[in-house]
Amino acid sequence: MKEKVGKQSLKFENAPYIIGAASVAGPKEIDGPMARYFDRVSEDPTFGKDSWEEGESEMVRQAVMLAIQKAGVNKDDIRYVFAGDLLGQLIASTFGIKDMEIPVFGLYGACSTCGEALSLAAMTVAAGYADNVVAEASSHYGSAEKQFRFPLEYGNQRPLSATWTVTGSGAFVVSDRESEVCIKGITTGRIVDYGVKDSLNMGACMAPAAADVIYQNLQDFDIEPTYYDRIITGDLGKVGKKILTDLLKMNQVDISDNHMDCGIEIFDNEEQDTHSGGSGCGCSATVLAGYILKKVSSGEWKRVLFVPTGALLSTVSFNEGQTIPGVAHAVVIEHHEMSKGK
Amino acid sequence: MKEKVGKQSLKFENAPYIIGAASVAGPKEIDGPMARYFDRVSEDPTFGKDSWEEGESEMVRQAVMLAIQKAGVNKDDIRYVFAGDLLGQLIASTFGIKDMEIPVFGLYGACSTCGEALSLAAMTVAAGYADNVVAEASSHYGSAEKQFRFPLEYGNQRPLSATWTVTGSGAFVVSDRESEVCIKGITTGRIVDYGVKDSLNMGACMAPAAADVIYQNLQDFDIEPTYYDRIITGDLGKVGKKILTDLLKMNQVDISDNHMDCGIEIFDNEEQDTHSGGSGCGCSATVLAGYILKKVSSGEWKRVLFVPTGALLSTVSFNEGQTIPGVAHAVVIEHHEMSKGK
Repeated sequence: MKEKVGKQSLKFENAPYIIGAASVAGPKEIDGPMARYFDRVSEDPTFGKDSWEEGESEMVRQAVMLAIQKAGVNKDDIRYVFAGDLLGQLIASTFGIKDMEIPVFGLYGACSTCGEALSLAAMTVAAGYADNVVAEASSHYGSAEKQFRFPLEYGNQRPLSATWTVTGSGAFVVSDRESEVCIKGITTGRIVDYGVKDSLNMGACMAPAAADVIYQNLQDFDIEPTYYDRIITGDLGKVGKKILTDLLKMNQVDISDNHMDCGIEIFDNEEQDTHSGGSGCGCSATVLAGYILKKVSSGEWKRVLFVPTGALLSTVSFNEGQTIPGVAHAVVIEHHEMSKGK
Repeated sequence: MKEKVGKQSLKFENAPYIIGAASVAGPKEIDGPMARYFDRVSEDPTFGKDSWEEGESEMVRQAVMLAIQKAGVNKDDIRYVFAGDLLGQLIASTFGIKDMEIPVFGLYGACSTCGEALSLAAMTVAAGYADNVVAEASSHYGSAEKQFRFPLEYGNQRPLSATWTVTGSGAFVVSDRESEVCIKGITTGRIVDYGVKDSLNMGACMAPAAADVIYQNLQDFDIEPTYYDRIITGDLGKVGKKILTDLLKMNQVDISDNHMDCGIEIFDNEEQDTHSGGSGCGCSATVLAGYILKKVSSGEWKRVLFVPTGALLSTVSFNEGQTIPGVAHAVVIEHHEMSKGK
């Protein structure tokens, strides 16, 4: 039982590795500063299909297959897929992976799903239940706006606190085969509800959950924020970033020097009119697969805390006057020196 | 790595136990033959709240807290909750567990969610990642009809192949503490798509997935169907049951003597006008918690294969003309002779 650390964390004795990662993104992402790190981008938001939803499934399929290919394994070597998206009943994931014939665990953690998937994938491999598994998460601007807000044709105004859902999918092969990137541990988040009800200010909804899980990670592992080269949240955006750093400062934790938010990095928010930043499961998933893992693999960053954040609402809960609680899942990703020269 | 068995199964070396289970159900279920086995039933479909959705969350909350109480542990002893429901973005689970302050993994496997939750819960405890975790799943007739089909006020006709969504929640404390019920292993399902598109014939959508995972379980563990006292599907109903047994017979597997379906058992289908049977995550979850586990605990049934089945659709995927694939997750639940008299 040595894996259990503190109240909410696990430290893996046999830390699993990420041996392949792939990112596929859409047209808006092409104009953002992260585009050059992505494996594939498409000018066509339906990715050659008939609808946004089918396009999102096609992204899922491409990202998973490409991650498997880049890992140098076969589809039949993958024992489980852990996958999720933002759409009701996970239809993007379902239709993206249904023909792969791989046992599947469907996950929903809103935009924290990439962290949830990586956590369960790492737990599964570290326990010896599988040699190779896939973790994947996706979102799509068109399908998400339709799911959560207004028809795009309506052209509603967006407040400056709003974020722009990323069209993208990130997939990862987690394995017991050594690589230069390992998952050392995880801190699993609780649902945190500060009573915020504004679905166009997701950063404010999610920041308390991010603060909670980051604080708990530092407590459980008995470390300072500077242990990490970067503490990287998923899609808090500019509004949420300020709330996060303020909340942690109130608890005598200062992450202002090494905090980064995928939602702020993925778009040029001034040029691209994306207001507070990018969001969606695909935001943190593509930035992790495309950008962060390259930095960790090269050793430029030795240790990062990856913390995707999710806002837990639906149109039904919103219209019935419920609050929008948040959740966040933290994954400790570290550079690993290969035991033999590679 | 001894846990891996065959292509899709795990056999736990340290098989975890179910030390507490609770079932909470609604007004229609009171008139069914399972009512006397449930811990709590309510004449009020909103469980004292303002909406079906809030009522479902209240069921979730009650079932989880009662399972913890019956297990004789404290809320603080629970390291993770694995939970899911049928509603978009899992709002029933979110608002049911949000105040418990327990780290959470949100799951979606449609009506197979109880099997998915028990699988991941068992994997987590068997690996030593936690002493006690909760697995939970729920559904609600009112919220599910609103989510997937027509407004109840519309009073649409229901074909005889249709099932009736169970209003119920089942919760389970999975633990390393010995009890008379243990989870010996799991077989995790793949998505199976036979191209069925009729959302009012869910049995036909799900039966192929059930056949696939049951067949694989028997192959992986190299056993005959008679190994189990019962092979228990979730909510195939009468239509799906026939398809399941026929499909397996085509593969020289005969489960007709020991197959049982929770959807057929939970209502008096003739008297209650529920057509093909009951359905929903809550169907298999409440029947497991209320009825099946008592039989296993007493030793009347030594071994059961619990196979909740899910139909993977949303109104969006349905309206866009997509098929309705199925998924099913099998859990091997066995009677355990206590090492010391209890």
